[in-house]
Amino acid sequence: MNYIIGVDSGGTKTEATAFSLEGEPLEQCITGFGNPLVDYDIAVRNIKKALQTIFSACGKDCKLVVIGLAGVDSSGQKERLESEFSFLKVPIMLINDGKLAHLSILKGKEGILAISGTGSLVLGYQTSQWLRVGGWGHLLGDEGSAYDIAKKAIQRVLFEEDSGQTYSELSVSIMNYLQVTDVLSLVKIAYQLNKGEFSKLAAVVGKLSTTNELARGILIKSAEDLAKQTIILINKMGNPQKRISIGINGSVIEKNQLFRKAFFTYLSDNNVKVQECEKTEPTTKGAYYLFKEGWQNK
Amino acid sequence: MNYIIGVDSGGTKTEATAFSLEGEPLEQCITGFGNPLVDYDIAVRNIKKALQTIFSACGKDCKLVVIGLAGVDSSGQKERLESEFSFLKVPIMLINDGKLAHLSILKGKEGILAISGTGSLVLGYQTSQWLRVGGWGHLLGDEGSAYDIAKKAIQRVLFEEDSGQTYSELSVSIMNYLQVTDVLSLVKIAYQLNKGEFSKLAAVVGKLSTTNELARGILIKSAEDLAKQTIILINKMGNPQKRISIGINGSVIEKNQLFRKAFFTYLSDNNVKVQECEKTEPTTKGAYYLFKEGWQNK
Repeated sequence: MNYIIGVDSGGTKTEATAFSLEGEPLEQCITGFGNPLVDYDIAVRNIKKALQTIFSACGKDCKLVVIGLAGVDSSGQKERLESEFSFLKVPIMLINDGKLAHLSILKGKEGILAISGTGSLVLGYQTSQWLRVGGWGHLLGDEGSAYDIAKKAIQRVLFEEDSGQTYSELSVSIMNYLQVTDVLSLVKIAYQLNKGEFSKLAAVVGKLSTTNELARGILIKSAEDLAKQTIILINKMGNPQKRISIGINGSVIEKNQLFRKAFFTYLSDNNVKVQECEKTEPTTKGAYYLFKEGWQNK
Repeated sequence: MNYIIGVDSGGTKTEATAFSLEGEPLEQCITGFGNPLVDYDIAVRNIKKALQTIFSACGKDCKLVVIGLAGVDSSGQKERLESEFSFLKVPIMLINDGKLAHLSILKGKEGILAISGTGSLVLGYQTSQWLRVGGWGHLLGDEGSAYDIAKKAIQRVLFEEDSGQTYSELSVSIMNYLQVTDVLSLVKIAYQLNKGEFSKLAAVVGKLSTTNELARGILIKSAEDLAKQTIILINKMGNPQKRISIGINGSVIEKNQLFRKAFFTYLSDNNVKVQECEKTEPTTKGAYYLFKEGWQNK
């Protein structure tokens, strides 16, 4: 039977799912991490293993494999990765993981996906074209991400130190979480943490935000920064008066209600007519929608 | 004859100078880089070599050695470094390089030193106490530094890309300087550059600023951010109505007239009464002023 495969390759696991041409899930395989930026050889091996398991179960009539991978547009590894899978003798598309999520959540239709996890990105799809705003990484952008929230929280501690204030409840929570008692140690640790560890501080802010005004303010500011980028994208897409489908993806915006509400409130306060799209299917199903919408033209 | 030694240990050279107790320079020795964060062993060797050269020339009556070192407060290496020089059997003080510059430029008196080079810091000295604002490094602070200016310039390119604008003259200059033609390559290179290389982009902004409004705007914004930190420090020091001595140090604020003017204009626009202190002596002379003002109490 004819089928297509979607692969969601992440930093912790690789999920491959086969879908019938009617969009029904047929087979699924989960292997280890599939991000080549973490370890190229192991990631490729995990993706291959997942694909071969599906092929064994579903047979030779695979029409398309779509692999969603973080940073594939900018890593310079796209061609090398494509050649890794060419032995499979089926059409392979490697796309940014955000695009796969967009296709899945918006079901292949036009609209915007606002992503806020460790990093952030606003991704638009219109007249078979992809458009983006933000997502330039932790040094240059990623406004409205967990990293951004964590950074704002540490900068608040430093501001209180700089201005000679008593530490606020937020600052005390940040310092307790990192098990430090002075800002020099705080800064030293902050520079030693990797991006993922650093971003976990956002959870401290999220937890406090129900009762603490400073934490609440940081979350709202971050959500509004993401909304501002969404408005830049809407303007770039033209026709800002039109009702626009907007989906959301990523731990921060999916799980933090305050952040999510502040994001959509800012949009409606700025006259954006929103059609909210709920996430109802696995990310891998983006491959099915891409096939259905005519992947050959992308 | 009695004398004291000041050592300015930098990332490219180590400069040691002996001063008489009247502040006259007696002997000078320049060796290689003296920043232990670059290479601990070589830095220590270069500092020792400089000190021993001075000792050989000036004899045994050295009363104090003051070594100014970047990041010595936060590196966790202070005690280890002090023990490296203990065999010299003279009192040794290891202080932050900013403090040595403050002592030299403000001649040991109370006031503020605003530093803007690759990084930034505002440093105050009052009633024998040091106070600081900012200087938390490129991820968390360093507002008004070359790094900050470079980052703002790249973010301007990304904003133009995000909003679908034609690249401005500033963006074209940045991309030409980095020899790239698209923003994905620009971002990739930006993440590969080290802090020093990244910060060199500030010179592109500086060069353009005489004719280009965007470049001018970035420099002024950065200078005002440094001035805002200075005002936070002034408030922390109490008595903000008092005329305050302010010196400047670092390539950005010393060499860029527009930046320097914007810095002092912002202060006077915000009712700060400034006594500008010119840099008239080498940084190493900070050691002499520290001795004169009673270093034992610091």
